[in-house]
Amino acid sequence: MTDQLSPAPAAQIESQRELVAAGLLLETGVPGVFGHGAVFERLRHQLAARIRRDTAALGAEHMHFPPVLPRQLVEGSGYLDSFPQLAGTIFAFDGNERDAIEQRGLIAAGRDWSKHQRMTDLMLVPAACYPAYPVIAARGPLPAGGAFLDLGGSWVFRHEPSQDPARRQIFHQHEIVRIGAPDAVEAWRGEWADRGLALMRALGLEATVEDANDPFFGHGGKMLAASQREQHLKLELLVPIAGEQPTAVASFNLHREHFAEVAGLVFADGGPVHTACTGFGHERIVLALLRAHGLDPDTWPQTVRNELGL
Amino acid sequence: MTDQLSPAPAAQIESQRELVAAGLLLETGVPGVFGHGAVFERLRHQLAARIRRDTAALGAEHMHFPPVLPRQLVEGSGYLDSFPQLAGTIFAFDGNERDAIEQRGLIAAGRDWSKHQRMTDLMLVPAACYPAYPVIAARGPLPAGGAFLDLGGSWVFRHEPSQDPARRQIFHQHEIVRIGAPDAVEAWRGEWADRGLALMRALGLEATVEDANDPFFGHGGKMLAASQREQHLKLELLVPIAGEQPTAVASFNLHREHFAEVAGLVFADGGPVHTACTGFGHERIVLALLRAHGLDPDTWPQTVRNELGL
Repeated sequence: MTDQLSPAPAAQIESQRELVAAGLLLETGVPGVFGHGAVFERLRHQLAARIRRDTAALGAEHMHFPPVLPRQLVEGSGYLDSFPQLAGTIFAFDGNERDAIEQRGLIAAGRDWSKHQRMTDLMLVPAACYPAYPVIAARGPLPAGGAFLDLGGSWVFRHEPSQDPARRQIFHQHEIVRIGAPDAVEAWRGEWADRGLALMRALGLEATVEDANDPFFGHGGKMLAASQREQHLKLELLVPIAGEQPTAVASFNLHREHFAEVAGLVFADGGPVHTACTGFGHERIVLALLRAHGLDPDTWPQTVRNELGL
Repeated sequence: MTDQLSPAPAAQIESQRELVAAGLLLETGVPGVFGHGAVFERLRHQLAARIRRDTAALGAEHMHFPPVLPRQLVEGSGYLDSFPQLAGTIFAFDGNERDAIEQRGLIAAGRDWSKHQRMTDLMLVPAACYPAYPVIAARGPLPAGGAFLDLGGSWVFRHEPSQDPARRQIFHQHEIVRIGAPDAVEAWRGEWADRGLALMRALGLEATVEDANDPFFGHGGKMLAASQREQHLKLELLVPIAGEQPTAVASFNLHREHFAEVAGLVFADGGPVHTACTGFGHERIVLALLRAHGLDPDTWPQTVRNELGL
């Protein structure tokens, strides 16, 4: 399909132009898909290490997943009901030598060449925590304290091409996951909202935490979004990046029993299992830092440099 | 499509079982797609840092690219002529609310739901160096010394499901790229083959360098493979991982004028531009280390631990 662009305000387009001119971002030619120059990537790496320092001190188990996951996992999760417009499916060639020659001809002619492409068993990761639940479930009943995971910076895909430098089609989401008894999980979510706010302020960023909702698809999605806000299931950490409106750089999400039921997470005594996740958007936080403190990290306030180990 | 498995010898299946049981690899349920436990990921990370230490000392520019890239870039590269069977294309939903409901019904019924999925502008990265050439070309004519890049560990996709733990569908390829005059590029490739061999031996691995060829598709592919070997365009670094045959853990590739022509890389004086790349397979090297020195890095020889900064 010809991807349709979301419009972006002038301030966001100008901001992106500056970041590219400074070599911080590398354009690929597709909106919302960027490479990182050395300075941007170093900042992202140090931010990840800063977050991991906290989770290590708190005893989180570290795991790391690739940018693709089993299609079956997404199919069984309800994601495609709520966000069909955002998911990326992976197709591959399914044919013989004659088909390959036909495909080659279609490509050379600039025509649609999807004819010999078939859906594989894989999709792009829609949210970093999805692959973690089955891994924990496969270990058997949860220990009494549940589980606490740091998944590091995972590549996550959202099919929403945009000229806004903060709205990527593919970006690093650093998710921290808690699995356990409902009260413990809800308390953990609140603690992480506080911790996220404190971290942004220590990094010299103006931050607030607010109720939010996910971009549910279609008319039915409006009700889901309203219900999510009403029940305070999603909190977002907002920070200025470009233009007037602040941008969400992290979220703190209560899933209730959803992922526990989907993955078959249980306590030995049969007690209820809830899950929650905290997700930090690496690229958005780095963009906010560049906006707040300037494009050259060598000139940033020493307190911010110390916080990031620069 | 129902992905067909390449058969794997018993030694490889047993090796994979051990790595999963030890928590080093995390199974996802799809062959050749694994998460990494904390120990495996730490080893991979330290290996990347070890490689980057060399490239930094030699003055390489560091860049980092996401696991997806413009489809147009792959279409224009010839990759789909040579390796149509390995490429991953990204599709996404293209429809209205009624289509979303129909798609949901197909998923719930366990049926093929590709009807409302359309090819997007993106593909999965087939080799880590692909996104780098247009970025360098966009800067204008090359400086006299050409360019030297370290792309770090990039996620690369190959659609070849297998039970061999060393044959992943998605893995980290750490590519180092040289762009310049033909003689300089050819000399650089030879130096990196020596450097790769020395690194593997410093890591306590039995390594050899041999002529090799890429897995070109179909009958015509056999001639391309023979020609590639005859011209010594591809060298591979082979190391034992599982079973009798050693496995390629790195390659050193001369592209001649191919990528320079495709991307429009030129010298100001119009002299010929060649490119070459060195690619280290992070996961395969970590697997080779685990096989050579055991599953617990705390017990590895001190020289190897020092080399990796463990």
